[in-house]
Amino acid sequence: MVSKLQFGMVGGGEGAFIGPVHRMAAEMDGLATLVCGAFSAAPEKSVASGVARYGLPAERCYGTYEEMFAAEARSAPGEGMDFVIIATPNHLHVPIAMAALRAGFHVVCDKPLALNLDEAQLLSTVLAETDRQFALTHNYTGYPMIREAQQLVRAGVLGSIRRVDCRYLQGWLSSELGDHKQASWRTDPARSGAAGAFGDIGTHAHNLVRFVTELEISELCADLTTFIPGRQLEDDGNVLLRFANGARGTIAASQIALGKENDLSLGVYGELASLEWEQQDANSLIIRYADRPLEVRRSGGPGIGASAHSAGRLPPGHPEGYLEAFAEIYRNFCLGLLGKPGALPIPGIEDGIAGMRFVQQVVASAQGGGQWVPWD
Amino acid sequence: MVSKLQFGMVGGGEGAFIGPVHRMAAEMDGLATLVCGAFSAAPEKSVASGVARYGLPAERCYGTYEEMFAAEARSAPGEGMDFVIIATPNHLHVPIAMAALRAGFHVVCDKPLALNLDEAQLLSTVLAETDRQFALTHNYTGYPMIREAQQLVRAGVLGSIRRVDCRYLQGWLSSELGDHKQASWRTDPARSGAAGAFGDIGTHAHNLVRFVTELEISELCADLTTFIPGRQLEDDGNVLLRFANGARGTIAASQIALGKENDLSLGVYGELASLEWEQQDANSLIIRYADRPLEVRRSGGPGIGASAHSAGRLPPGHPEGYLEAFAEIYRNFCLGLLGKPGALPIPGIEDGIAGMRFVQQVVASAQGGGQWVPWD
Amino acid sequence: MVSKLQFGMVGGGEGAFIGPVHRMAAEMDGLATLVCGAFSAAPEKSVASGVARYGLPAERCYGTYEEMFAAEARSAPGEGMDFVIIATPNHLHVPIAMAALRAGFHVVCDKPLALNLDEAQLLSTVLAETDRQFALTHNYTGYPMIREAQQLVRAGVLGSIRRVDCRYLQGWLSSELGDHKQASWRTDPARSGAAGAFGDIGTHAHNLVRFVTELEISELCADLTTFIPGRQLEDDGNVLLRFANGARGTIAASQIALGKENDLSLGVYGELASLEWEQQDANSLIIRYADRPLEVRRSGGPGIGASAHSAGRLPPGHPEGYLEAFAEIYRNFCLGLLGKPGALPIPGIEDGIAGMRFVQQVVASAQGGGQWVPWD
Amino acid sequence: MVSKLQFGMVGGGEGAFIGPVHRMAAEMDGLATLVCGAFSAAPEKSVASGVARYGLPAERCYGTYEEMFAAEARSAPGEGMDFVIIATPNHLHVPIAMAALRAGFHVVCDKPLALNLDEAQLLSTVLAETDRQFALTHNYTGYPMIREAQQLVRAGVLGSIRRVDCRYLQGWLSSELGDHKQASWRTDPARSGAAGAFGDIGTHAHNLVRFVTELEISELCADLTTFIPGRQLEDDGNVLLRFANGARGTIAASQIALGKENDLSLGVYGELASLEWEQQDANSLIIRYADRPLEVRRSGGPGIGASAHSAGRLPPGHPEGYLEAFAEIYRNFCLGLLGKPGALPIPGIEDGIAGMRFVQQVVASAQGGGQWVPWD
Repeated sequence: MVSKLQFGMVGGGEGAFIGPVHRMAAEMDGLATLVCGAFSAAPEKSVASGVARYGLPAERCYGTYEEMFAAEARSAPGEGMDFVIIATPNHLHVPIAMAALRAGFHVVCDKPLALNLDEAQLLSTVLAETDRQFALTHNYTGYPMIREAQQLVRAGVLGSIRRVDCRYLQGWLSSELGDHKQASWRTDPARSGAAGAFGDIGTHAHNLVRFVTELEISELCADLTTFIPGRQLEDDGNVLLRFANGARGTIAASQIALGKENDLSLGVYGELASLEWEQQDANSLIIRYADRPLEVRRSGGPGIGASAHSAGRLPPGHPEGYLEAFAEIYRNFCLGLLGKPGALPIPGIEDGIAGMRFVQQVVASAQGGGQWVPWD
Repeated sequence: MVSKLQFGMVGGGEGAFIGPVHRMAAEMDGLATLVCGAFSAAPEKSVASGVARYGLPAERCYGTYEEMFAAEARSAPGEGMDFVIIATPNHLHVPIAMAALRAGFHVVCDKPLALNLDEAQLLSTVLAETDRQFALTHNYTGYPMIREAQQLVRAGVLGSIRRVDCRYLQGWLSSELGDHKQASWRTDPARSGAAGAFGDIGTHAHNLVRFVTELEISELCADLTTFIPGRQLEDDGNVLLRFANGARGTIAASQIALGKENDLSLGVYGELASLEWEQQDANSLIIRYADRPLEVRRSGGPGIGASAHSAGRLPPGHPEGYLEAFAEIYRNFCLGLLGKPGALPIPGIEDGIAGMRFVQQVVASAQGGGQWVPWD
Repeated sequence: MVSKLQFGMVGGGEGAFIGPVHRMAAEMDGLATLVCGAFSAAPEKSVASGVARYGLPAERCYGTYEEMFAAEARSAPGEGMDFVIIATPNHLHVPIAMAALRAGFHVVCDKPLALNLDEAQLLSTVLAETDRQFALTHNYTGYPMIREAQQLVRAGVLGSIRRVDCRYLQGWLSSELGDHKQASWRTDPARSGAAGAFGDIGTHAHNLVRFVTELEISELCADLTTFIPGRQLEDDGNVLLRFANGARGTIAASQIALGKENDLSLGVYGELASLEWEQQDANSLIIRYADRPLEVRRSGGPGIGASAHSAGRLPPGHPEGYLEAFAEIYRNFCLGLLGKPGALPIPGIEDGIAGMRFVQQVVASAQGGGQWVPWD
Repeated sequence: MVSKLQFGMVGGGEGAFIGPVHRMAAEMDGLATLVCGAFSAAPEKSVASGVARYGLPAERCYGTYEEMFAAEARSAPGEGMDFVIIATPNHLHVPIAMAALRAGFHVVCDKPLALNLDEAQLLSTVLAETDRQFALTHNYTGYPMIREAQQLVRAGVLGSIRRVDCRYLQGWLSSELGDHKQASWRTDPARSGAAGAFGDIGTHAHNLVRFVTELEISELCADLTTFIPGRQLEDDGNVLLRFANGARGTIAASQIALGKENDLSLGVYGELASLEWEQQDANSLIIRYADRPLEVRRSGGPGIGASAHSAGRLPPGHPEGYLEAFAEIYRNFCLGLLGKPGALPIPGIEDGIAGMRFVQQVVASAQGGGQWVPWD
């Protein structure tokens, strides 16, 4: 008898990038183990991927997620899947999540939550009818120094926030990539939703702003561009933000910023102090004050708060990266399911709804030529 | 007999920040020397500043610029001032420059060029009627790595440009500064013009984009904010740009980004390569390519072009900073006046006019609630 | 039936730092799973740790490693432990490793290999008599950019190497830590061996130099110091190196460099190019050339070689850190055991012997007052 | 009547690197102006350089320094040279300095002070017989953040110092440079002295350690190497240091660290706090504490002490570099001569003597095969 949670996965088959990331992240802290999956829409590929990529026995590699949910729901107590990870293109998130919830499984879903806001709200309604847990992998919130940033804002160290900048720049879609698996669905409205870069990474940026500042957006103005001929969704864009408290902000998301790898950065400027963080130096948080030298707080280092501390696994100077931050979502999710102490709040359905509203309003603004639109 | 050019200064008296910077920059390369000045609107302060701050004889510290121009114009050949530096608040730039040109002096003027576009164009007309030289101290163009950036764009290394981001963030106006000399005129429309942060530093950002990319702006959308109660001009803002070639861009300027010192950064993303530069690491230029490792070109280092090379004074690894870049404006200006070889183009009247148009349209957009306005 | 390898652990009980690191690293790539352990010298603590910390069933948490080896060796084929991880203080490495090998288990051992060189050579002899695999967790060799560095040296990109600098600076032993579990055994000669900082982290630095440059040390001169009164082993030291090819080098190791976290850095200077790497920016490798701009190769990025590429798990810009590098040792070890393709060479018994010789000669030099001693 | 000091220069003719640096540095703060020189050992070159390079009238470009001292000493009061800058190869420093002092001139001399310790002490004796001022351009002490470091040590912020590391790595002598003017005399014992890299840049490193820590070296052990065949002086070396207070340290100097530009860095580790500085980020000083987040003090920024503040010229974020630090030596020298307030102590004859002793003992240690030698 093993005390680990057992999980299945939908998606993540051969060629998928994010499936193995979910697997590594979910298992990192020894709280859960992958036991089954429906890894591909093509049943034979699903089995092949499960066996070759994940080392699963063929009998728990299902041809479809419906089949998996049905079979696993019939398992003896303690034997079947406890939760499912949804690591598919966006258009399948909500249908699969609803099916999983209805079959009695907890759900961890990749972002963005849905194809559109209506779908997101539908899922929210379904979720509310169950007692199941739901997490959304806005994984960048898992970095210890992002936890620290949130805590500093909450503690009033920054005073009232005046300005927020979040940039998420990638360059991998700088040219036409042909039938590249990762690229093709992300640039297809039917599978990705109404936005390209803003659905894929702009939602991360939005969520990071939301998580750290907890400010409400009141209006926004967006300019979206598609640089690669023939591409159906924007691959670059900029959004101006006005917040309810009077603060101003910007969110940039680009996938044609050639040579940029995965550069996510955040600046939050308050009346008393300011914060700066960038993923390329993820274990540092810069804090600037009006009247004393700037400070660099470090993952695991002296002076950090309890939430940042608990979000790290290693002593300072042992760099923790993307996988560890991703795993932090799972660690807290599993602690919660197991009823163990110490679980920190993680992104969930409300974050997903906010993200879909963000995408919807960004697209609406851009389609209106870049006019200001209210948040709701 | 000394072969140096002789210059006077208007402004730069006790308490002024930029006057001594001009003096150090103008004299750095041994091509020019300060011989006279009208350092303050108060005649007695002018003399006191000239003697104490600049070591000048009292008889060449004039009570007014009119007096200085008249007296210096009467000097024997080779004895009087050759050019004048205008280092006053903005509203005096054009009147003084016109007087200087009409008195036969070459002019180096601080930025922004004028109070408004009309005034700038008037000065341009006056200038065209003389054979005098005019330079505008958009000093950031003097960094060797900015020269390198321009040259790389011109050489087609980036291919067509798609995205440009320029941020200029300061925090020194994060609180009400009372009767702080530097702050008071910069936040007074009568002396600064229609914009605050965008007049003072947004014009630098605009000029940097213009200098490096040589793209034409076709439309812009601006959101300006005044965070400090009672302040008359914006202290923070963001501008979205659309360029004539289809590129998109952003310019941010803030003086309430608490703790930010003088953080000017530029990113230019092309279809073949991208550039990144920031003043805090001014001697480096990052170049990213699609298919090979990123490159860091360094001031004085291997692989840089002729213009970047000539813009530096020291071997690589001997950091050159703000003063050296500022001096580069003067070096080229003086080489030109002296008829010596090697002068590189420097910002002039056209840059000043473009800057004033930028400010005018940014303010127009913001006053319209953040609507898109055409460049002209 | 699961196709993963099964491993046990000796050490790593409550309060141990490195045990959970081994567990996370060994399981990261889905090739192996922890099934049993003897986690503490105190049997009841062993069981408690195994259940609470690792989620194991109590029946596979053994009171002693001898008991574990005996029980697991009796398992049905495919059911028992395949390899054992030794995560104990240094003095137990060799006795446990010999017992494990003799019981038929493959071994992954933490560093340094042994208490002294004699013990290391004894283990080598025992190992040679078996057909078992043995790996030593010099985990820093697992960073993709360290693989890249090795490959560049091998490819002759640097030409003949002239200078090598490796620094490993920590500050956590800057004061007397009382009965701190991690500190106490590391500063006890009976459990740590003849060296303190040089046993614990100097061996990592030595191994990194060895791995990347593959140069032979011919002579060395060491100065070791104990700064904390009452501490029995050195907490700081510097070593000068002379290599057989004429190159020179330095290795510094300190645990009293207050405020330094875990700063490992490497510089290799050749006649044609040079390399620089530091763990705090582990995903970058700086390459400097004589006649062209410096280059930064990035984990997962363009231009890197096959070994660096295979050592990474994520696209560029998704930072991989300490755990991922550590896991790279296990990934290759497990691929080898499983007979799967793609296993890269990892540190083994020869590295351990070289490390113990390094410690021995460093201590000999220091005890002689800092005189030069030959490598052997 | 001009209130500036007037100075002459010996050396610095066409092709010399450091002469123009001295001129720019000495004139930067408007306290002094170049009026004459003996720029080359070849009289006709001296005049040509003075006119073309420095814009001087031919009649004050002297054929020899003896001639210059004689002529300038005959000038009417207030008309002749006040001080002389010695910017020649090392072997001429002392003869010229003695002649200048005896002719009644103050002296600013480039480093290292002399060919050897005896010569340095002779100069000290001569200097003591005059009332003239003498400064040695260990220009790196002029950085504001180096002033800050010294002040923090003096204030006891670090507590007792335990470890000091200073590295000065260049790559420009990585190959045989033929008759390169800068290279040829630096590698010629008759003109450079007993050491190559350690005379040229090792003395800077030594002085920086001395300036910041004010510790006394008690013993040292050096290993020097000449990598380029035919070169007569070492181009690379490492020194282990033992200080009188029990601290340990290292100084590395290399001119074959290929691709390194001019990388000077300093680490000082105390029992209460530690400092880190590197010239490539000269405007920052990192301070690490045992129990709170690290701090970055910035030139011109909040929290810095009076000496660091006075050593800077610009607001924070306006990078000051090599020339500004160099100019700080001159600023203080001139303030002293002018009897103005605010002059900070600068390196002088005692630093020069200490530097020559350092070189002498380093060479002695290396020639003994790398044995420990006492400081004196």
